[in-house]
Amino acid sequence: MKPNPKAMLKRYIPILLAVVFAGNTVFAQQDSAKLKQITNEVMLHSKCYQWLNYLSTRIGGRISGSPQAAAAVEYTHQLMDSMGADSVYLQACMVPRWIRGEKESAKILTNNAGEYNVAICALGGSIATPAGGVTAEVIEVHEFAELKKLGAAGVKGKIVFYNHPFDETFVNTFNAYGGTFMFRYMGAVEAAKYGAVGTILRSLGNETDNYPHTGVMTYKDSVTQIPGCAISTMGADQLSRLLKTDPKLRVHFEMGCYTMPDVKSYNVIAELKGTEHPEEIITVGGHLDSWDLAQGANDDGAGAVQSLEILRTFRALGIKPKRTVRIIMFMNEENGGRGAKQYAEEAKQKHEKHIAAMESDAGGETPLGFGLDGTDAQRNAILKWKGLLLPYGLYDFTSTEGGADIDKLKDQGALLLGLEPDSQRYFDLHHTAQDTFDKINKRELELGAASMSMMIYLISQYGL
Amino acid sequence: MKPNPKAMLKRYIPILLAVVFAGNTVFAQQDSAKLKQITNEVMLHSKCYQWLNYLSTRIGGRISGSPQAAAAVEYTHQLMDSMGADSVYLQACMVPRWIRGEKESAKILTNNAGEYNVAICALGGSIATPAGGVTAEVIEVHEFAELKKLGAAGVKGKIVFYNHPFDETFVNTFNAYGGTFMFRYMGAVEAAKYGAVGTILRSLGNETDNYPHTGVMTYKDSVTQIPGCAISTMGADQLSRLLKTDPKLRVHFEMGCYTMPDVKSYNVIAELKGTEHPEEIITVGGHLDSWDLAQGANDDGAGAVQSLEILRTFRALGIKPKRTVRIIMFMNEENGGRGAKQYAEEAKQKHEKHIAAMESDAGGETPLGFGLDGTDAQRNAILKWKGLLLPYGLYDFTSTEGGADIDKLKDQGALLLGLEPDSQRYFDLHHTAQDTFDKINKRELELGAASMSMMIYLISQYGL
Repeated sequence: MKPNPKAMLKRYIPILLAVVFAGNTVFAQQDSAKLKQITNEVMLHSKCYQWLNYLSTRIGGRISGSPQAAAAVEYTHQLMDSMGADSVYLQACMVPRWIRGEKESAKILTNNAGEYNVAICALGGSIATPAGGVTAEVIEVHEFAELKKLGAAGVKGKIVFYNHPFDETFVNTFNAYGGTFMFRYMGAVEAAKYGAVGTILRSLGNETDNYPHTGVMTYKDSVTQIPGCAISTMGADQLSRLLKTDPKLRVHFEMGCYTMPDVKSYNVIAELKGTEHPEEIITVGGHLDSWDLAQGANDDGAGAVQSLEILRTFRALGIKPKRTVRIIMFMNEENGGRGAKQYAEEAKQKHEKHIAAMESDAGGETPLGFGLDGTDAQRNAILKWKGLLLPYGLYDFTSTEGGADIDKLKDQGALLLGLEPDSQRYFDLHHTAQDTFDKINKRELELGAASMSMMIYLISQYGL
Repeated sequence: MKPNPKAMLKRYIPILLAVVFAGNTVFAQQDSAKLKQITNEVMLHSKCYQWLNYLSTRIGGRISGSPQAAAAVEYTHQLMDSMGADSVYLQACMVPRWIRGEKESAKILTNNAGEYNVAICALGGSIATPAGGVTAEVIEVHEFAELKKLGAAGVKGKIVFYNHPFDETFVNTFNAYGGTFMFRYMGAVEAAKYGAVGTILRSLGNETDNYPHTGVMTYKDSVTQIPGCAISTMGADQLSRLLKTDPKLRVHFEMGCYTMPDVKSYNVIAELKGTEHPEEIITVGGHLDSWDLAQGANDDGAGAVQSLEILRTFRALGIKPKRTVRIIMFMNEENGGRGAKQYAEEAKQKHEKHIAAMESDAGGETPLGFGLDGTDAQRNAILKWKGLLLPYGLYDFTSTEGGADIDKLKDQGALLLGLEPDSQRYFDLHHTAQDTFDKINKRELELGAASMSMMIYLISQYGL
């Protein structure tokens, strides 16, 4: 595409007008200039991309309780220290320690076409298979209701294969995830009720590829624990196809995962004390832990370094927020949420007043808006800034998603804000071996950091 | 990130309300349902991703006049035929035939630190260097004004190095491109006026990497022709750094590119005759030619297959447009625009009435809106559909960019529409060896095709 210089000029006139007339006040003009200054600082001098490189490629996957998670605590603690916040501290919490182990394999044993290796991975929190693995016939279902219909007669002794694909007609891929998440989280419990010996989940993703997606699953005290794994979408298609002509085929899978005793770990926190209303707290963060299959670059190294970038930018520009801003690296979002629990409990005990909490945990892609989870008054306080934010591509405030690490602060009165990046590529990487640093685009990551910095600036300046 | 099922439900209520109340009429509800049907058809059954795979990996780079460009004409002609438009035809035009040749290399010869190979590529249309290459001192400039200041005394016999980086503070990267494009297009002419023997252009891109970006340059009859190349952004940084301590260093570069006589080529056109107003024509297309360094997947294979997808979708859903819709694969956008000229001239000769023309030539990334280049009345006719389009992420109609292949139809009364995808990654690939099929995300490409299909449907149904 070749540019048309005249059109280039014209392109910016409506944006400039929108900025100048937003709110129609001198304040709006000052705010507009400040937001531009913040964005320029991030786009020209940010360090978040190089921090993410270190976190991803030097430290690597950071599952809770692992040496890598401990190294990430140490690294981000040092970064915060070096940037000179008013206070920097660790907040201890006990976290689960689940280990994938060495063994992890599966094959389809057909009755007339030999064997096929397929790509699987254990779901987080699963028990191991018995030594030598599980070998059983497979029953394919698409909804929990089908299990109930089949009953023990149809399920007992078999492996349940949840084959519910992502709904590609949603524009936002998180809606497709929402429609399949329960099969991962509750699949083993529901299948075990009817006597299944294991579960295989079609990976929760959009692409047809050979990367299985892990993620947390759960057990119930009253229900027998059975091992649960995810199969790649290609593997799921293959298994489903083979089952159509060979319904008595068997699958063999073996997993060596296990759970160790809880380990002490930490949230990492930096605070900029409010100059006028220090008692009003604004929390912003991402989670430091990740799954173990790759580097956790996008989930959620991106959100962690974007949050750190707010601190760097405020310091670089000499912004002293009127309200207290806390930057938090949350620990253990993926399989327990213990860091989030600890933070919310301590906040409650200390009778802290959290007016807003923001999380970036939907990827480092181009930001399009913020989810807002709060009262109408809180939402309206944010929406009056829409005109200021639109020039930066932030147009979408319809979602009511905050974030898993900040959810509990809602009861304490905080408006929850979730950064909403473009979701199209998110579930190609999510919880797979593909979640590596090379998938991150520097400008997209930085635009997210700039968006968060602008919003935190406005809230810290004006309150809600 | 874990989903919150309650929030997932709430997320969709405002969207549903927006759809239902858009326009506040029964028509809006019918339109809304039709747009959803169109999008579902594309997201579930589109073939554009597999067509792009063929165009990119089986045919490859399609520079005008090349065998690959001819193969692409043949392939898309067959595709159109197989989909059963009312008429499918070729429109002949003569196109330039520029060939890169085998030789293409450069090195920096320092006075105190040896030699460094650097990555360059010839700019499209450049003459070759003399046999054995050009070797000369280098003068670094950032604006044309600096050349004037230096004058012949400072420039004569030297290589001019245009080192104007992309402005990273623009949110839309096309604005940064607009600020640097003239150095590529006019750089050799401006430097030759002062006696330069060659030009080296800092590649027009955001990333710091080692891929040079080609693209069209021009000569003027009255000014001596000198060879022009682009150096990778990494190479540009290195050259600039070395010049600071060694201003008398020399650069050697050699290029074997040449121009052959014009070749006959074609626009490829499919037409769906309007059922009620066949005389009102709506044109939509992308360009079939590409640069030669890679596969032309994003520029502009994406736009070509998205345009074809409109035809497939209309046929699959039995949509018979009230106004005539023409799908066009334009030839020679990159270095001449001969196909566009031919199309516009024939339209004028035949006194055709083009009410709208749409182009997709800004990449296959997530669509965010359309540029609108036309009268206020035409713009307003489109903007009344904003509410219908917002649920698909189409929010931005502020740009006044149409597209290089449709520009000339504006004089004939057409509103020009340019698909506006997210621009963050576009100039990482643009005109480089990186513009390959693996960079394309299936859903992003399809959302673009769905956006174009919806807009063409609305215009063909209601006119402007």
